[in-house]
Formats: sequence, structure tokens, C-alpha cells
Amino acid sequence: MEHEARNSRKLGYWETTLAGSADPAAYVPASLVGSNVLREDLPLPVCVLRAAALERNLDRFQRFSEEAGVLLCPHAKTSMSPALFGRQLTAGAWGLTFATGPQVRVAREHGVPRIFYANQLTGAADIRYVCDELRRDPGFEFYCLVDSAAGVRLLADRVATARPGRRVNVLVEGGLAGGRCGVRDLPAAVLVAEAVRAAGAHLALVGVEGFEGLARSRDDGRPEQMVREFLGFLAEIARALDERDLFDTNEVLLTAGGSVFFDLVVSELTAARLSRPARVVLRSGCYLTEDWGAYGRALADVHARTGSAKPALEPAIEVWAQVLSVPEPGLVILSAGRRDFGQDSGNPVALEHVRRGSAQRRPLHNAGWRMAAVSDQHAHMAVPPDHGAEVGDLVALGPSHPCTTFDKWRTLYLVDDDYTVTEAVRTFF
Amino acid sequence: MEHEARNSRKLGYWETTLAGSADPAAYVPASLVGSNVLREDLPLPVCVLRAAALERNLDRFQRFSEEAGVLLCPHAKTSMSPALFGRQLTAGAWGLTFATGPQVRVAREHGVPRIFYANQLTGAADIRYVCDELRRDPGFEFYCLVDSAAGVRLLADRVATARPGRRVNVLVEGGLAGGRCGVRDLPAAVLVAEAVRAAGAHLALVGVEGFEGLARSRDDGRPEQMVREFLGFLAEIARALDERDLFDTNEVLLTAGGSVFFDLVVSELTAARLSRPARVVLRSGCYLTEDWGAYGRALADVHARTGSAKPALEPAIEVWAQVLSVPEPGLVILSAGRRDFGQDSGNPVALEHVRRGSAQRRPLHNAGWRMAAVSDQHAHMAVPPDHGAEVGDLVALGPSHPCTTFDKWRTLYLVDDDYTVTEAVRTFF
Repeated sequence: MEHEARNSRKLGYWETTLAGSADPAAYVPASLVGSNVLREDLPLPVCVLRAAALERNLDRFQRFSEEAGVLLCPHAKTSMSPALFGRQLTAGAWGLTFATGPQVRVAREHGVPRIFYANQLTGAADIRYVCDELRRDPGFEFYCLVDSAAGVRLLADRVATARPGRRVNVLVEGGLAGGRCGVRDLPAAVLVAEAVRAAGAHLALVGVEGFEGLARSRDDGRPEQMVREFLGFLAEIARALDERDLFDTNEVLLTAGGSVFFDLVVSELTAARLSRPARVVLRSGCYLTEDWGAYGRALADVHARTGSAKPALEPAIEVWAQVLSVPEPGLVILSAGRRDFGQDSGNPVALEHVRRGSAQRRPLHNAGWRMAAVSDQHAHMAVPPDHGAEVGDLVALGPSHPCTTFDKWRTLYLVDDDYTVTEAVRTFF
Repeated sequence: MEHEARNSRKLGYWETTLAGSADPAAYVPASLVGSNVLREDLPLPVCVLRAAALERNLDRFQRFSEEAGVLLCPHAKTSMSPALFGRQLTAGAWGLTFATGPQVRVAREHGVPRIFYANQLTGAADIRYVCDELRRDPGFEFYCLVDSAAGVRLLADRVATARPGRRVNVLVEGGLAGGRCGVRDLPAAVLVAEAVRAAGAHLALVGVEGFEGLARSRDDGRPEQMVREFLGFLAEIARALDERDLFDTNEVLLTAGGSVFFDLVVSELTAARLSRPARVVLRSGCYLTEDWGAYGRALADVHARTGSAKPALEPAIEVWAQVLSVPEPGLVILSAGRRDFGQDSGNPVALEHVRRGSAQRRPLHNAGWRMAAVSDQHAHMAVPPDHGAEVGDLVALGPSHPCTTFDKWRTLYLVDDDYTVTEAVRTFF
């Protein structure tokens, strides 16, 4: 059992800011609080977050990070929900991570004080916005990535024009060969850092960044070695820049970490030794809700690698749909489709069946239900002869990859253990 | 050249209603009108609709339907944009089609007077909402589907409780074996229609419906025969119910039609002969913007089948992204990913390259660019050695399947031929 410290923490700056940033009524429509999903009080389909599991995940991942001696800066693109940003910051997160200009605007409009932009910042309008915010708010901290001398010059030129009144913090991004952004070797990293030094009036080099999660796509069953080597490469970059005295701060940030290999990020990056202090920043985002597919399996792998059951995260996101038709033996059609859940990491699994009007939940995990096909607004479930489903019954679906389910909804609902709504959670994609 | 009659039409009821339903400023933020995509005035990535192509599509598909002697009731789930609903109704559409309860709410809140609900209506909250609207607004016309006696009884019971003050119009849905909803044979259709007759105090049977588009997924290269047989099955259902005098109106609605086989829908359903008049309703939705993939190819098939270049629809939807990195030879990373465009019918194609600051568009159709991989917020483009792209350049992407690109955005922008914004188009997914 984990200690429940979260609720006793003192409220922070961001909470009052978040609370004050918009009409609270927009976050908690009183007419829906108290509505019950199983009683069909809400329009269907609906996406719910199990509040108790979410609160435990918030607490346990924060605790895991603190015990590992790393800062947590969760990737908040997962939910794009200010109501959840506030909970993550309240739980103790150092800052929040974002990936696009529009996402940064949402964060700032809801009072997020420290933003890690885990991407190259290139757009004219986006750079202007960030610089305006840096000038306007002395409390705003911002970090972004660079991976080429051309990109450094573009950013520096645009910052020079936008006049933020202080330097913009950048980290050199290290990349995987065949992967995404990021320098592929040490000489390239040094060239980029030297370009930052040449633009020293406008940019400050504060660390090294990478995203190890792409190794998964080249999974031959054992991607750990590739991930360890990649994280070692990030540490090598940091040492090379440290030796050349190219960092502009006394403390260097070393940061990586999706939600698949975060244990390796902790062990490899905290082992890096530089001439100056280093702080490791973990950026996992999916811990908030976990899932019933890819990230659930990834968590099991973490537990197997570390020989520990920590962090004990639970899937907290579900899509509830209704049986529209049982048109032939072995086929049940549900009222949720590809516009209601993500499919990029596999189709959702069937979790529970509720006979209309009964509120009795029957588990479907091992009942032989399978999502055989998906339309925009329908799921086609292949079911065994004794499926027991009738028109109007409810079925819970468990998605794989929370990011691509969150972004299907403008409002999700926090529910208690009986599926009564306790809060409406708006998203801003 | 098609005659441009649309602009000379008299404004209809829906236009004043749509115009009056919300602050017009919300639809046209003055600060963005006049912004130019190629000049990087807007945050990136951005989804644009080419206004001239969209207006031509609206006119040409309406004209095509009228010349074929069918009513057009476009599937509006494609865009979920009241600003486009209004244009479709103004162009002459008979009504608009929707598929979920939340979609119906959006339509009604924006004043859509006639809704074809191309789905089974089962949810308690959704039925209550529709009945409330029928009671409140005598001008509201609503149609939905039934495909089982159990579903008919569920709907009738809930309508009885909700007391709309008039009967709810239903159509028997015919289905494809192994497909989605819908009765699979004539005896089942008759049983469903008899169940409607038994619930005659609450429901009125007004027609027969089907969705022939599912045949595409079983495409062996020549799905037309299966589609023709399926449409013939719908006509058979109509004849069987007509012979048994199970329709409750003098005029029977016969409706089908996605955006792939609409020519076959026109030819097969208008050929059906009943003892009473029949009106064919076509429900295609993607004609509005077409696409650069699946629906573009489907349109070419229509033209080949009919030996005509009509309707002459043009792709009107594009996602513009920025080059973030050229991290290794043959690889360009763009700032748009699976959260910015659909992938269910294939990845987008690269359309154009614009050197930063130049506004000069270079076509990429045959330049050997290919989207090799996609992350949440990035596209990984495999490119030839002479790709010519630099960090900060802009690239236009052409999506396949408009529905799953529209739903990634809260605001799209109508642009003129020079990519200057003429209107912001909000979506309500």
C-alpha cells in the first residue's frame, strides 16, 4: 500500500492560477455531476476516467520519480486537459511537456508556469507567441530543442526579432538513426552547441534531450539494449559539451522518457557523470491513465525488468457504448467507432457488459469478444454464441494508447466506482 | 463548365436560423481573416479548406443529385461544422444526416430543421432529447432506423415515455451479411415492419435504408456487383413492405449512399417500382472536400463506370506543416502527425513545398516524397536525395478520408487561391 500524501500537500501557485483562469462552471457542469453512466443518464458513447485509479496513478508515479531522484515533467499532450494539468502540478510535477505551438497556447492560457517544449520550435507565429509570453510574465520558464545549426540560426533570428527580454533555453536533441529529430552523432551535437554559443545573445544551452521510445517500433522482442545505447549516447553528448564548456548554466538538464522505458531512462541518465551537477527530467505522460493494451504491456515489462511492482499503475480510461444491433449470430454492433477511440496501437478490448436497466457489470476480459472491424461511428464485435448481449445493453471498451483516445473527446467524465459522474474534464486539442 | 446558380438562390429558413444561432464573430475571428498560411502568419500545423474548390463541390454535387432526380441529404458527420451545414442547406440539400446523439444535439443547437439519423436510435438520453425537440419545434423533421423487433420495442417504449406529441419516423435498415447493422433477409425485414405497425401509436414506417459502402472492404477489385445486389435487396424489402401495406405514408423514402458508389445508388434505387410514389435520398458526405486518396480514387471509378466526368469534384482539404528537421539523408521530419490527419484510409500524400519566406509553391506529387512513418505530432517523410527541403520550409499534405482529418481540428480555415484566410470554420466533434 502506498502512502496517500497528495491530499495533504499545500496548494501551489498553479492551482490558484488554474482555478482562476476560466469559469469553474465550465469544468463542472452541475447538471451532469451525479449522472450515472450505467443508468444511461448521459448521451452515448461516452469516455470516462475512473477517478480513484487516476488519483492513485498521479500519486504513485510522482512518488516513483521522487524515489528515483528525478524530476517529473509529464508530457501533457496526452490529455490536453487543464483540469488534469492542475492535478499533475499539484501532485508535485516540476513542469509540463508539450509538443506543438497550439498546445503551448492552451497551457499558457490556463496558467502553466513551466513548459518543456519537447520539439524543435520553428514557426514564426509560435516563436513570436513564446517570446511575448516570456516578456509578459517573468515567472514563465520555457525550454525547447535544437538539432541543427540551421535550426539554431532560424530560432535565434526569430527570437532576436521578437525581443523576449531574456535568452531562450535550448537543449541539444539526440536522435536515433532512422528515427525522428535529433543529431545522429557527437560531431553534429558539438556543431549544434557551437551554433547556440554563437547565438548566445538570444539562446542559452541548458541540457541534452532525447526520446528513446522510438526504439519500440524496431522491436525485435528485446529493444532494451538499443534503448540503453541510445541513452548512453545522450550522456556522451552531455559529456562532450561539458568538456568543451558549451553549457550556459551550472546545472545541466538530462531528459528523456516516454512511458515505455522510463525505468531505463532513470537508471542510465542518473548514472551520467559530468563536471557540473546534472538533473534528470522524466517526461512520461501516459502514466496518468495507463491503458488496456500497449502501455499496459509496457508497464508489465518495466516491472519484469526492475523486479518490482512499482509504480503500481492502473488503467483508468474507458469508452462506454451501446449495443445497437445483433444482426446475425456471432456479431454485435456497438455505438462507438474510430472517432471515439484510438487504433494506432491496436483496437480496444471489451471490458464489461451491462444488461440495460440492471447496472450489473459482467466482465468480458475472457469472454471471447473481439473487435473485428471498425467504422467511423461503429465497432463490429465478433462474439461467441453465448454472448448474452441485447439491443440497448451497455459495453465498456478499454483503449490502447491513451493519447489517441483523449483527443477524440471535448469532454471526458471523471466517475466514481459506481460510474456516477463526479466532474466533467474538458480537453483543448 | 457548370452553371453557377448557387449564389442567385434565395436564402432559406436555415440560413437565417444558422446565422442567428451563435455569435457570428465566433465563426469569423476578424484577427485571422487576411492572415496568410504561406507567410507563416498562423500557428502550425494548420488544416485549410480551399474555398473555391469547396464552393464548386457544393454546387456540382447538388446539381448532380437534382439532375439524377434524387434528394440530397449529405452525411454531415464528415465536417461537424455548422458553417458548412449552412452552405449545404443553402445549396439545396433536403436535410442533413447524422449518426450519434451528440451530433444531433450540435445540429439542433445550430438550427438544422430536417435530420436523417442514419443509425439505430437506442440511448435513453438521446431518445429523450429527440422527443423533446419534436415537441418543442413543430418544424423539426426527424428520421431514424430500425433493424430488429427488440430495437423497435425499445424505441417505442422510450418514445411513449418521452411523449413527443407525434410519431417518430423510422425506416427499416437492410444490411449486408457480415457487415454492420441491418436485417439480413426479407422475412426479418417484414417482422421488423410488423413490430413498427404494432407500435403504431409511437412510430411511423416511412421507408427503407441501407449503406452499400461496406462492400468496399470486401473489395476483390470489382465490388460493383455486390453493391448492385445489395441495392436490389433494399428495393425488394420496399416491395415486400409495400405489398403488405406496412408503410404509414403515401410516399416511401428509399435511401443509401456513401461517397464511393453513389452512381449505383442513383441507378438502382430510382429503378425500384412500388405501388406508391418513392423518393430516393442520397446521403454522400465526402463530396464536400473530396480527398487525395481513397475518395479521389472512388470518384475516378464513378467517372469510369458512368462514362462521364460529372460530378467534377476537387480535393479541397489540406494540412500544412513545417520542416522541423532534416536529420539524415533521405529523411525529413514535419510538424504534423496522427493527431492532425487521418490514417484509416492511408497516409496523406505530399502536395507542395514552399521555401520559407518565398511563398513559392513547388509541386511534390511526383517528387518521390512518401510518408514512411507517423508519430502523434510528427510525420517522417522518406525523400529523394534532391529533396531541397530546409528547416522552416512549409509542406502541404493531402489526406485520404476527410472525416478522420476534420475531426482532428476545432478550427479549420477557408483560404483563397493564395492561401489567405477568408473565414474560420469551427467544428463540433
